[in-house]
Amino acid sequence: MHVKPMKELRLNTAKTIILKIGGSVITDKTEEMKARTGVIDRLASEIKRANVTSLVLVHGGGSFGHPLAERYKIKEGFRDVSQKMGFCLTHHSMTILNGLLMDALMMHEVPAVSITSSSVILTENGRIIKFEDTELHRALEAGYTPVLYGDTVFDRKLGFTILSGDQIIAVLASKLDTERVIIGVDVDGLYDTDPKHDRSAKLFEHLNLTQLRNVRNKLDASKAKDVTGGMAGKIAEIIPVIEKGIPLMMINTMESDSLFLALKGEDVKGTKIEKE
Amino acid sequence: MHVKPMKELRLNTAKTIILKIGGSVITDKTEEMKARTGVIDRLASEIKRANVTSLVLVHGGGSFGHPLAERYKIKEGFRDVSQKMGFCLTHHSMTILNGLLMDALMMHEVPAVSITSSSVILTENGRIIKFEDTELHRALEAGYTPVLYGDTVFDRKLGFTILSGDQIIAVLASKLDTERVIIGVDVDGLYDTDPKHDRSAKLFEHLNLTQLRNVRNKLDASKAKDVTGGMAGKIAEIIPVIEKGIPLMMINTMESDSLFLALKGEDVKGTKIEKE
Repeated sequence: MHVKPMKELRLNTAKTIILKIGGSVITDKTEEMKARTGVIDRLASEIKRANVTSLVLVHGGGSFGHPLAERYKIKEGFRDVSQKMGFCLTHHSMTILNGLLMDALMMHEVPAVSITSSSVILTENGRIIKFEDTELHRALEAGYTPVLYGDTVFDRKLGFTILSGDQIIAVLASKLDTERVIIGVDVDGLYDTDPKHDRSAKLFEHLNLTQLRNVRNKLDASKAKDVTGGMAGKIAEIIPVIEKGIPLMMINTMESDSLFLALKGEDVKGTKIEKE
Repeated sequence: MHVKPMKELRLNTAKTIILKIGGSVITDKTEEMKARTGVIDRLASEIKRANVTSLVLVHGGGSFGHPLAERYKIKEGFRDVSQKMGFCLTHHSMTILNGLLMDALMMHEVPAVSITSSSVILTENGRIIKFEDTELHRALEAGYTPVLYGDTVFDRKLGFTILSGDQIIAVLASKLDTERVIIGVDVDGLYDTDPKHDRSAKLFEHLNLTQLRNVRNKLDASKAKDVTGGMAGKIAEIIPVIEKGIPLMMINTMESDSLFLALKGEDVKGTKIEKE
């Protein structure tokens, strides 16, 4: 066994890939707290095979986060003591989902370290105003993959609220020297209407910033059945990422190998979004 | 249902009780990753019954933390790539133990929120030099019980290391307006020798600071079979707490109701340590 000097734990200076995996990919939203453990295992194996030098992973809540968050109206903030335990339960449920993903990453020997979003993030009216990022940077420098997730958080104005994984990736993209962002969802990418309810929905294969803004304006956010804002909310979060010139790829991580190929930077079906 | 104003989430100004529960209480150290789920459930129910206004809970690692930490020499810091996954595995194992405790606290409706120690703490040569405590304070002010634990952490000099729950309580005692500290162990309190190996061991029922220092000097730290320092290490961490004038009670949380009584401030068998 070759003994390496200690400082190697700090040598990683590669640009970072930020990977978001949607809650609808790793959970079955038709049933409360139902994980897709087979999908989780496959994604962990694809991450291992891709062997990215600098990677941050963020995942959503799906059926572990949204039903509880809705039941206790966590997003709306603290208004009633009946919500108090709901905040704890929603957070706890998210740690269980995160644990399942971490289990799979450990099994596949991905050097991943879970960073609890609520432990390091404070919001004000739902927007991140403080992100205590010491461990994030330490972990990345040491060649570990930090794993964060959509979570309940304390909020300076609302008492508490829900923080989406999409807002986390937007902040990460601004904090880190980001190569690109990959968003894994359960459809082939970004469509002009909801492909789950409209068979004539058209997939965008490539969008620039102007086109992306137009798409957002056309999507009706009021139809979103997701406490973290649905597709319109997702686009609103990624616009600042694209504005910074960071390319983004939205892919279908229900398809085998799409994540592996995207991580390797190879061609894969999906929506590519770039500034120009 | 009576609707309370939002700011009630911030009204808690009571002095805080810091409760440490040892890894040897909530796990069986004779087998790797074996939790004492019955004990965990009973402790959660006692915490619920005691209904403390302001409480922080810190737990140790026991058979979820120590065997992995020893196998990969995590405490010694990063020296070899073979340790890299060991850091992840040890942290992941601690999150599993924490999850079991959080499960029980949720079942008993204790408004507890897990704060991942490694997400908020950075050490240097094993000593805490940074503790990002925004969520800790928010949670306490809002009447939640933050739960932290002994964990793997990144270290500015060593790369990474192990942080004991005992060091965490010492830092918490200095950060918070602390009423008292309770340490739950699997023996009746602090003895002149190891009561598990010496039947003539004498329990100290009351110690002042001078006496505590004498006890530490007599205990042979080299005998400690615990990556976080054994009883001598524990005493070294609590001396600064006692110096601040914060009283401390060490009790046997394997005994039913001892934690409940200690939380209520009632008489219970154990070792009481005070400055004078």
